[in-house]
Amino acid sequence: MNQSTTVSPTDRTTIRRLPELANHDRATLHRIVDEAYVCHIAFGADDDTHCIPTAHWRSGDYLYIHGSNGSRMIKALSAGAQACIAMTLLDGLVLAKSAFSHSMNYRSVVVYGRFEPLQASADKLAALDAFMDKIARGRKHEARPGNGKEINATSVLRISLAEAAVKVSASLPSDKPEDLELAVWAGVLPLRMAHAMPIPAETNGSVAVPDYVTGWAD
Amino acid sequence: MNQSTTVSPTDRTTIRRLPELANHDRATLHRIVDEAYVCHIAFGADDDTHCIPTAHWRSGDYLYIHGSNGSRMIKALSAGAQACIAMTLLDGLVLAKSAFSHSMNYRSVVVYGRFEPLQASADKLAALDAFMDKIARGRKHEARPGNGKEINATSVLRISLAEAAVKVSASLPSDKPEDLELAVWAGVLPLRMAHAMPIPAETNGSVAVPDYVTGWAD
Repeated sequence: MNQSTTVSPTDRTTIRRLPELANHDRATLHRIVDEAYVCHIAFGADDDTHCIPTAHWRSGDYLYIHGSNGSRMIKALSAGAQACIAMTLLDGLVLAKSAFSHSMNYRSVVVYGRFEPLQASADKLAALDAFMDKIARGRKHEARPGNGKEINATSVLRISLAEAAVKVSASLPSDKPEDLELAVWAGVLPLRMAHAMPIPAETNGSVAVPDYVTGWAD
Repeated sequence: MNQSTTVSPTDRTTIRRLPELANHDRATLHRIVDEAYVCHIAFGADDDTHCIPTAHWRSGDYLYIHGSNGSRMIKALSAGAQACIAMTLLDGLVLAKSAFSHSMNYRSVVVYGRFEPLQASADKLAALDAFMDKIARGRKHEARPGNGKEINATSVLRISLAEAAVKVSASLPSDKPEDLELAVWAGVLPLRMAHAMPIPAETNGSVAVPDYVTGWAD
């Protein structure tokens, strides 16, 4: 595979615990980042290590976040603090016959690097349009776009996905040979993010209901 | 309310962005920690800030994790590194009439502190029993318990939940008055963690299926 389709581990992203779960496929990395709505960003500021949840989206090989100019995290990351970002999609509980062989099925991404703030309003608007496309495709043409005041008060930052560790666990329980005959139920209790019935605001009046709303619920 | 039912913010856990979402109810904190299976732990080691996903559970006012003695995170946290832990339960996408008023409904916890490793095997076993109870109530009496070798190879660490920030967003979209008449659908697209049909291992034979398996799927 050429470089654009794989993730080459660095010293920081070489997976040492359960290395057999490491995944070096860039498409898998992108799918996990796209499916997760929220990531957790670690950074140092004011002599402390912080870990803050925030919404994210992806364009190309960059992960984007946004926030108020005045937020501590936005200020620290805009100033170039080294960041580490983690997100996890939990797919199930794996019940083995022995207590210590229990595990979970999940897909996780951990990214190392430094964010860079977007400077031009046009770049910020284009990035925020991509965010809206992730939330609901086509909605960027419906919602009232951001005005100058709103855009100026908002920071948009991006970080390269070049230095990322991807881990995928998707398996049935794996017990030691001597435990396989135990009379204990083993298997997977699957979890998945479900879509429930949309809740309309009271201000909709006779507004047409978009397809991404009527098609939302599972 | 007395101290045991509330979370008193420190300088690190005072919520400055959207302070109206701060929640100081200790029962809410416990419910979020109990409902989330995975947290993200930020810590410094080897000159870098890391953020690693890991399973967690709660007993009383402590959050517990476990891992291999040899893992970088376990070693750094056991040595007393300052940690910050974040977990997020995502409840929905909030679609407003203006792009900048879009938001998400979520429940998040951020904890600051330092972990302490449990020393006695009996304490580690009792803590791991509580983890098993979270995964499937009663299963600790069914699965083969950990033996000495397994317990010795595993670290169990706990951290106090005393310094925690809880944020709960559960609302319909909030648009500016001048946007309310726009012909744009507004409302919430709810998300929830669903339970799908259990997948049995091939090694179950005639083993009875426990209630927590038959009752798992939504």
